[in-house]
Amino acid sequence: MKELEFEVPEYERRLAAVQEAMHKSRLDAIMITSEDHFRYFTGWHSPTWSNLTRPRYAILPRIGSIVLVVPSSNTIITARTSWISDVRTWVAPCPSDDGITLVREAIREVTSVHGRIGAELGPESRLTMPVGDFRRLAKEVSPVEIVDAYPLLRRLLNVKSPAEIEKMYKIGQIASAAYEALPGTLKRGMTIKEACTLYKCDLLARGAETLPYIIAVCEQYGYPCINLEPSNKKIENNDILIIDTAATFEGYHCDFNREFAFGGVQDLVRKIYDIVWEATDIGIEATQPGRTVSDVWQAIAISMEKSANKLGVPFEPVEVGRMGHGVGLRMCEPPSIAPDDNTPIEFGTVLTIEPNMVYHIDVKGEKRRYVLVHEENIAVTENGVRLLTRRAPPVMPLIA
Amino acid sequence: MKELEFEVPEYERRLAAVQEAMHKSRLDAIMITSEDHFRYFTGWHSPTWSNLTRPRYAILPRIGSIVLVVPSSNTIITARTSWISDVRTWVAPCPSDDGITLVREAIREVTSVHGRIGAELGPESRLTMPVGDFRRLAKEVSPVEIVDAYPLLRRLLNVKSPAEIEKMYKIGQIASAAYEALPGTLKRGMTIKEACTLYKCDLLARGAETLPYIIAVCEQYGYPCINLEPSNKKIENNDILIIDTAATFEGYHCDFNREFAFGGVQDLVRKIYDIVWEATDIGIEATQPGRTVSDVWQAIAISMEKSANKLGVPFEPVEVGRMGHGVGLRMCEPPSIAPDDNTPIEFGTVLTIEPNMVYHIDVKGEKRRYVLVHEENIAVTENGVRLLTRRAPPVMPLIA
Repeated sequence: MKELEFEVPEYERRLAAVQEAMHKSRLDAIMITSEDHFRYFTGWHSPTWSNLTRPRYAILPRIGSIVLVVPSSNTIITARTSWISDVRTWVAPCPSDDGITLVREAIREVTSVHGRIGAELGPESRLTMPVGDFRRLAKEVSPVEIVDAYPLLRRLLNVKSPAEIEKMYKIGQIASAAYEALPGTLKRGMTIKEACTLYKCDLLARGAETLPYIIAVCEQYGYPCINLEPSNKKIENNDILIIDTAATFEGYHCDFNREFAFGGVQDLVRKIYDIVWEATDIGIEATQPGRTVSDVWQAIAISMEKSANKLGVPFEPVEVGRMGHGVGLRMCEPPSIAPDDNTPIEFGTVLTIEPNMVYHIDVKGEKRRYVLVHEENIAVTENGVRLLTRRAPPVMPLIA
Repeated sequence: MKELEFEVPEYERRLAAVQEAMHKSRLDAIMITSEDHFRYFTGWHSPTWSNLTRPRYAILPRIGSIVLVVPSSNTIITARTSWISDVRTWVAPCPSDDGITLVREAIREVTSVHGRIGAELGPESRLTMPVGDFRRLAKEVSPVEIVDAYPLLRRLLNVKSPAEIEKMYKIGQIASAAYEALPGTLKRGMTIKEACTLYKCDLLARGAETLPYIIAVCEQYGYPCINLEPSNKKIENNDILIIDTAATFEGYHCDFNREFAFGGVQDLVRKIYDIVWEATDIGIEATQPGRTVSDVWQAIAISMEKSANKLGVPFEPVEVGRMGHGVGLRMCEPPSIAPDDNTPIEFGTVLTIEPNMVYHIDVKGEKRRYVLVHEENIAVTENGVRLLTRRAPPVMPLIA
């Protein structure tokens, strides 16, 4: 009944790579607690991550096999989804000792050489266990020191294998097709929530497995920000709707948006769309092995600034601090396509290229601030850059 | 454009209650970082929580107003969804200082009396920020001490207001209706995933806003565990399908399951279903103010043991360690309906009553182990116990 999402040799390669990195970083082990790292190294996956009652732990040792410490209620999930055989369980919830003694013993078995273990502590990480238990564990394993292993883990997870890229291509195609179908189903007078519900159902029907992030904002002449819940506001003439999507297939995410215009598009909006669309092409072209993600940021920013100058408007990027980021088992992973992020681009890098720009339109005597964002997901392969999503239409789809 | 989910006086009451609790616990402030606490105290909500790049913080002071420390890209979300006016922002991501200096300053402004602040550290909590940043913050605010405030927060969040219970009733009714419609749409030969997709779309169409947890397991004569992803296995004759659902309306969850039989139901399964169905009634009746959740556990366990004895099978609860739990802004909240959890039942307590039992059936000469779980969500109100879900059918629905 075991249904692994990758062949065992792929998991073995991942373990060998993290063990080599541990050796170089003088770590005896890494303790992982979070959903994406569990799925990556152990195969373990279940919708039960949304239940925070029961934590779970995997100890990746510098030498030898992975140890899983999971609640006894997770035994069948482990047997069916994970390639790991050293599984230790306790009956959870047990607030006085929710796995901590078992984790401490597993750590003691492997910490004889460097006296240092790694954990998910650095920027963008989330330690998926109660931090009170982490403080207790840190005391109990002392003098073994617990240090940040997140950058080390990221270096490995940032480089996707061909099999991972296939899964990301699959979810990118599913969401692209669902976006392309929307002009045939959306109508003025629908609420944003109704529009979004149609879209979500279509995503599921096309094979998306989870929809962790679907936002929709729709206002006159554009959207002031993304990241709002779909509201009960009705879609009106001259509205522009943005939908942004993170959906998954076997744990792997797409993350990209599209816009739809109702009734008409203001001339300025059309031109801003062109600028951001072209900057997306520039960003895709600039994504090449040997460069860094900051080079991609530069290329996008220079292109947009030039175009904005030509149009005679100021170039002001949105205050999101970047023009894209990594995508994978998380919707937003490092690196950030930002001026100070020098992460190298390699074969296996997967990014969302996300140029964005602010513009202003006078509405009823009031100067309103809008943003416009484009996104495409790409993978750097030995055969060149592969578009995982289908390119957005060069002109914003107009719904009469 | 502000669209608060509750009237301001409700938020003011929540702040007053946490301030009174802080006073008693000698805390100068509580720092909150997690989605449910943000929504509860500040109103702030957005699908962007699934992006882990940018953390956010709220400082609840013992006296005075809440301070929000959020990324500048969250400014419009804050303006539209939160009643808090003291908002401090930084441009994120900024790995060298992702809000920590701002948080430290906000803490310094309020820590003059007790020199102690609370944070989400205890069992079942998740600190929704990088723990490396938490370690840094703990050093920087020293000698101010950071202690666990999770039990204090839980005592408040465990008692739902009438307005909160209305939202939970709404999502309970939505999911009940979707379950009741399933016998009309499910068919043998569908895959479990196809069945689940139909169900998810129906939930969305009926008004569910997010579907954080939908599991489906379907095997001969029963299910060996819940918590598996819906697979591509085809539904066959003599299969029993379990679906378990956490869906939300304005952040509030339902959490309950239903079973469906295909072709026929074994006599033993029918009897186990009866036992668990009756135990659910017993659990609902036992949920009364003045009792504790351990009393509810006892009542359920005694009922099931008696019935099992009568049937001549051993009574063995599933290894989930409990017979239900709190539900609210999280799918699984404390308390646990467990023998050693003495949390009192009060007006405003919302629980899922979740009796469960193991049984065995010989399949092709092999003794297979199955579980059977029932769930209903209930609220304890001044007018008695209110069923938030519609009671499961007393006989397992049979799909020819």
